[in-house]
Amino acid sequence: MDDGNGPRRLQCPACSRTTLDRWRCRCGEPLAFAEPPIPEHGPPAPGDIDARNGLWAFEQLLPVGADPRDRVTLGEGMTPLVDAPEWGASFKLEYVFPTGSFKDRGATTTLTRAVEIGVDRVVEDSSGNAGAAIATYAARAGIDAEIYVPAAVAEGKLRAIRRAGATPVRVPGDRAAVTEACLAAIGGGEGEGGEPNAADDTGGDGGTDAWYASHAWNPAFFEGTATFAYEVAFASDWTAPDAVVTPLGHGTLFLGAYWGFRRLHRAGWIDDIPRLYGVQAAGIAPIVRELHGPEAADPDGTIAEAADGIQIAEPVRSEGVLAAIRGTGGDAIAVGADDLSDELDRLHAAGFYTEPTCAVAPAALTILRERGEIGPDEEVVVPLTGSGLKK
Amino acid sequence: MDDGNGPRRLQCPACSRTTLDRWRCRCGEPLAFAEPPIPEHGPPAPGDIDARNGLWAFEQLLPVGADPRDRVTLGEGMTPLVDAPEWGASFKLEYVFPTGSFKDRGATTTLTRAVEIGVDRVVEDSSGNAGAAIATYAARAGIDAEIYVPAAVAEGKLRAIRRAGATPVRVPGDRAAVTEACLAAIGGGEGEGGEPNAADDTGGDGGTDAWYASHAWNPAFFEGTATFAYEVAFASDWTAPDAVVTPLGHGTLFLGAYWGFRRLHRAGWIDDIPRLYGVQAAGIAPIVRELHGPEAADPDGTIAEAADGIQIAEPVRSEGVLAAIRGTGGDAIAVGADDLSDELDRLHAAGFYTEPTCAVAPAALTILRERGEIGPDEEVVVPLTGSGLKK
Repeated sequence: MDDGNGPRRLQCPACSRTTLDRWRCRCGEPLAFAEPPIPEHGPPAPGDIDARNGLWAFEQLLPVGADPRDRVTLGEGMTPLVDAPEWGASFKLEYVFPTGSFKDRGATTTLTRAVEIGVDRVVEDSSGNAGAAIATYAARAGIDAEIYVPAAVAEGKLRAIRRAGATPVRVPGDRAAVTEACLAAIGGGEGEGGEPNAADDTGGDGGTDAWYASHAWNPAFFEGTATFAYEVAFASDWTAPDAVVTPLGHGTLFLGAYWGFRRLHRAGWIDDIPRLYGVQAAGIAPIVRELHGPEAADPDGTIAEAADGIQIAEPVRSEGVLAAIRGTGGDAIAVGADDLSDELDRLHAAGFYTEPTCAVAPAALTILRERGEIGPDEEVVVPLTGSGLKK
Repeated sequence: MDDGNGPRRLQCPACSRTTLDRWRCRCGEPLAFAEPPIPEHGPPAPGDIDARNGLWAFEQLLPVGADPRDRVTLGEGMTPLVDAPEWGASFKLEYVFPTGSFKDRGATTTLTRAVEIGVDRVVEDSSGNAGAAIATYAARAGIDAEIYVPAAVAEGKLRAIRRAGATPVRVPGDRAAVTEACLAAIGGGEGEGGEPNAADDTGGDGGTDAWYASHAWNPAFFEGTATFAYEVAFASDWTAPDAVVTPLGHGTLFLGAYWGFRRLHRAGWIDDIPRLYGVQAAGIAPIVRELHGPEAADPDGTIAEAADGIQIAEPVRSEGVLAAIRGTGGDAIAVGADDLSDELDRLHAAGFYTEPTCAVAPAALTILRERGEIGPDEEVVVPLTGSGLKK
């Protein structure tokens, strides 16, 4: 039970074991918070949520940062939600963040968790938006960070990481090799204690090992991305849209949104949970393959290369993603290179200066409307997840 | 008199002539709004300002966008204001904007003005943040834009402009030649009628000429940057800090802040106006030169090249800037290349991923404290004006 003193415990949704802090359960599954806070009262009155505090305005829903002095924040969140009449949707500009992507939602809560746990070194494997976000928030916290990246990554992609004082660690081999090297840094990867995120039920200081600030594994990261849902519902005074269409790689935003809407529903703040649609890159679309077979995942035998932010062949939380799709009546869909490219042109010409990966979501909305999966008059929110300045 | 129908009139602070819309007064001076809205009641109660609306939450202070349908907005504003303990100040993260700089404050109000006037083509001269912001908001408005830039500018700097569908117009010669070419596009530059921004008192449709969406001249731009002051005061429930230290080129933010704090003071929303300190690039520091002579402006005979966002040899509104400094008891100071470079390292290492120009302001704060111009316990706000992703 959480008594408000010290970091909240984690629990495995698969086997129900609890732990003070580990990067994954002893059974191998990703963890969640054992008792995330659920407000006991109905939706807050207007003015009870102070939007000036960014996403920390939702502190009563967050399982980290109970003591504001622990919070590692750059004032992030409360991103714009604007009409996109050409698309018949609302776009949430998730690139309007300190590091230029929605990953800051997860970085602020993850580094806050790191402060609560008392770690002094974090590791992450990502050469993209997550790596930059973790490095930047680690700098804000005064915590050392090592960011594991593929050896072949262009130096330009590492600039934000280096400038924040984090150490990029180049790893030869494929993306899996990068993760393996990162896991080695946290004490062996599989270890039953002694590893960080952290050891076992008796402690959690991480010892000399690093703490895994993973956007794919760390439940604090998803509790941060859950604030996307809180903001969407808050923007409409606690009503949810009919559907949300997000890019889907590891599902950092997709699952965070699901956790968030579900928690709002449990708290009685919203009456309905939106249908969640996840959009993958054609050619590397494991969730689409699972649901609709190889032809749907890989319609023309090519890979949507420009969608490099979501090319994840083995999403860590794929079971959770599938449960979210089934539980909300949503779907997953793959978008190809041509549709992506056309959509990116359209976005930029309309004043939405995003990075290429973002374009899969509005492109998918058009297809989902053509298929009749989303009705012409349904309210839809589409996040645009990264800044065009990133390229 | 403004009756709420149609665009508000402009007036020359120097000669008092009024006009429906011109890019500058017939006497040559930059214009202001004749009767900007001044709320008649004291500071709004908590909850009366809805921060979810971004800077448009301050609609009662804005002389444009009375009809929300005219507003050209990407949900911008309400940027983070965070503690920077290492500096003994609060940083306002003015890079957390759709285009990555505070110029979006002015772009949203300027393009809104353009919609109110009914123009269908805007021009601007800037290869930097202002050009990107005007191009992006013009795209949002569906208005054509031409951005005049020096012929030598790197193609990479024009990417956001091109992607928004705006046309970069490369002009040989120096920066003044760029402005001249831009003025020619608005109908001759000096003309007494027939030029856009717009003709004379009898109309304002701009005819076939373009409308000058200038971050240096257009009063709507400064009314937008004034929202910086509204947000700073709102963050502290309508108290102002002791001092604000901003970069100073044309004074787009510096003067906007002055207009904003002054208006809040006239409305009785704040009791005191902060001292305003403007920070220029050593070697190109005309305001510092005016106040403190050539040695203060150019201490070592070199130019702080990295501060390319504020290298303005002849600020359009220099008289206004000087009046703001004298009127608030502030000052202007020049920062050199070495101090800038050290400060940029420090900012990035602390998690503030800004472009180089930004670094002049926190660097100046240190110097102003050493000189005793700003006391150790005084409350200071420093805007960080552009994203590190811009480089």
